[in-house]
Amino acid sequence: MSKFFTSKYSALTPYKPGEQPRDKKYIKLNTNESPFPPSPRAIEAASEAAKSLQLYPDPTYRALHEAIAAYHGITPDEVLLTNGSDEILNFAFMAFCDKEHPAAFPNITYGFYSVFATLNHVPYTELPLNPDFTVNKADYMGTRDTLFIANPNAPTGLALSLDEIEEIVRSNPNRVVVVDEAYVDFGGDTAVPLIKQYDNLLVTRTFSKSRSMAGARLGYGVGSKELIRDLNTIKYSTNPYNVNSMSAAAGLGVMADEDYTVKNCAEIIRVREYTKAALKDLGFEMTDSLGNFLFVRHPRIKGEKIYKALRKRGILVRHFDSVLISAYNRITVGTMEEMKALVAAMADIVKE
Amino acid sequence: MSKFFTSKYSALTPYKPGEQPRDKKYIKLNTNESPFPPSPRAIEAASEAAKSLQLYPDPTYRALHEAIAAYHGITPDEVLLTNGSDEILNFAFMAFCDKEHPAAFPNITYGFYSVFATLNHVPYTELPLNPDFTVNKADYMGTRDTLFIANPNAPTGLALSLDEIEEIVRSNPNRVVVVDEAYVDFGGDTAVPLIKQYDNLLVTRTFSKSRSMAGARLGYGVGSKELIRDLNTIKYSTNPYNVNSMSAAAGLGVMADEDYTVKNCAEIIRVREYTKAALKDLGFEMTDSLGNFLFVRHPRIKGEKIYKALRKRGILVRHFDSVLISAYNRITVGTMEEMKALVAAMADIVKE
Repeated sequence: MSKFFTSKYSALTPYKPGEQPRDKKYIKLNTNESPFPPSPRAIEAASEAAKSLQLYPDPTYRALHEAIAAYHGITPDEVLLTNGSDEILNFAFMAFCDKEHPAAFPNITYGFYSVFATLNHVPYTELPLNPDFTVNKADYMGTRDTLFIANPNAPTGLALSLDEIEEIVRSNPNRVVVVDEAYVDFGGDTAVPLIKQYDNLLVTRTFSKSRSMAGARLGYGVGSKELIRDLNTIKYSTNPYNVNSMSAAAGLGVMADEDYTVKNCAEIIRVREYTKAALKDLGFEMTDSLGNFLFVRHPRIKGEKIYKALRKRGILVRHFDSVLISAYNRITVGTMEEMKALVAAMADIVKE
Repeated sequence: MSKFFTSKYSALTPYKPGEQPRDKKYIKLNTNESPFPPSPRAIEAASEAAKSLQLYPDPTYRALHEAIAAYHGITPDEVLLTNGSDEILNFAFMAFCDKEHPAAFPNITYGFYSVFATLNHVPYTELPLNPDFTVNKADYMGTRDTLFIANPNAPTGLALSLDEIEEIVRSNPNRVVVVDEAYVDFGGDTAVPLIKQYDNLLVTRTFSKSRSMAGARLGYGVGSKELIRDLNTIKYSTNPYNVNSMSAAAGLGVMADEDYTVKNCAEIIRVREYTKAALKDLGFEMTDSLGNFLFVRHPRIKGEKIYKALRKRGILVRHFDSVLISAYNRITVGTMEEMKALVAAMADIVKE
């Protein structure tokens, strides 16, 4: 770090995105991207928006807020669009946590929560998952913490039921509960309808996964008008035009093509379940993931060894350094063809 | 604000973007947008990128970093791409200021500096401009502050010479000097070459103005490798994929079409000088702006009255509440046709 760098951030260990090697063409199952291209309507809308890039976006993103509100059966002032869902998560850490209001989240979850906490000087507790990676709900009841719950969780893919989420939200009336639903479209139950009853619930969403728009950087939060107003104070003090016009247009395009999203999600679920069965046949163990990824280990072969053996065969998956999950790899669900290639490679690896 | 909102940010007064009314079609001269569409190569590249939005962007944005580095004659690790130049400015406040390292900037300048300072709990000094809106260089020599200097300044359009910038940078070897060159392509001198000699210089740029890409949200900073590394620590702790793929592609497209940018800038300068002369003929007074905007008052007519009279005639300009500049309006330089309409409206207004 330079001599000019503030001591405020000297303890930061930045988030490490999944690798993007360029040495050869890989089957890329390491960053939970969709194997399907974006909706043709999203592409068309983005291309059209590109023609008038000389103009700033509408900072209220009214049209897309209205479309998202209509989709969820809520009002536009219960929505805030952000530059990916990472931004809404950071805004939530900024708005609803501080030294006196610590954060808590599972000890195995999306790696960015602890980075955001450190960035914002928010003390945090990592709540241990059970040995089977399920959440111990009691840890989340009546806390003094702002809670961050990925549901389904990553990288485990396990989900709490809507009833369990509601119990947690209800038992923490004085703290915000953030439910991160990045992966909800692949089999989870959304908590969005609960925002009408609970003023302490913020649900975050992304267009990156089920809507095939990771490159667009488009996410949003939904919550009570008051929560959204707070988050807007942060947004307008950070980057009023936080979302570019093309991504906003593409978001409108894909929202108008819901059949396409539904069809893709169904196919990913079908391929996921095929892959689960095929890997189990090979002796692999895994969680019952409801995400667009699997969380897989082999009783005999180390996680890192599998990661490397797959990489050698041109297949990229995600291996995490954390000792808690070093036996595992997270494998994104790609196309049926890609997953058949994965299964074949795994068959090879277990024979070695 | 909700009962959940942190007291840390209760003092925030967010930045107020220029108005975007929808009641009728206006000649929009209020947000310093380019009157010209983006380069056809930018549009084409963005449209092409839209087709593979299912993939995350390359978080190193290598291709565009290389293009920007080639343009400036520097190396890619001296560049950091951001989600508009607002983001690089916020990162600079985060990285190089804190309670012990306050910020300073002119009392009349880009309104976001004070918002970023407040957001980041950075004490700041607003250094008074001279009565003619020029910077009093002595105020910036040998300070204890991280300096933010828009050059040319907004909304005045006045610029310091490269020699003056260098004197300021040289006299503050222990503090970072941020030179915000959002408007430099319309007649200012860039300080970018100085980054090779001064490790305390950060220059920020935007694709929003001269490159007709305000809607793309694309900006960058250039500085020593060490400064850029610090800013990357902030980026990777905030939003690793901070720029979407389409904007990055469009940036590459416009960088490959430099003639288009040069031609547009020359035309904006020509129209600016025409407008200056025409408004002076009508009795208006103004700074000798080097930006893509004019900063104009009339000796007899109040700034707000002119703003409202123009608005009634379908022309939007920017009027600021600050008492220091309430006599003035900031008028973006549009096409010759738009500026002839502005001059005609002004001729009407002074006759009333």
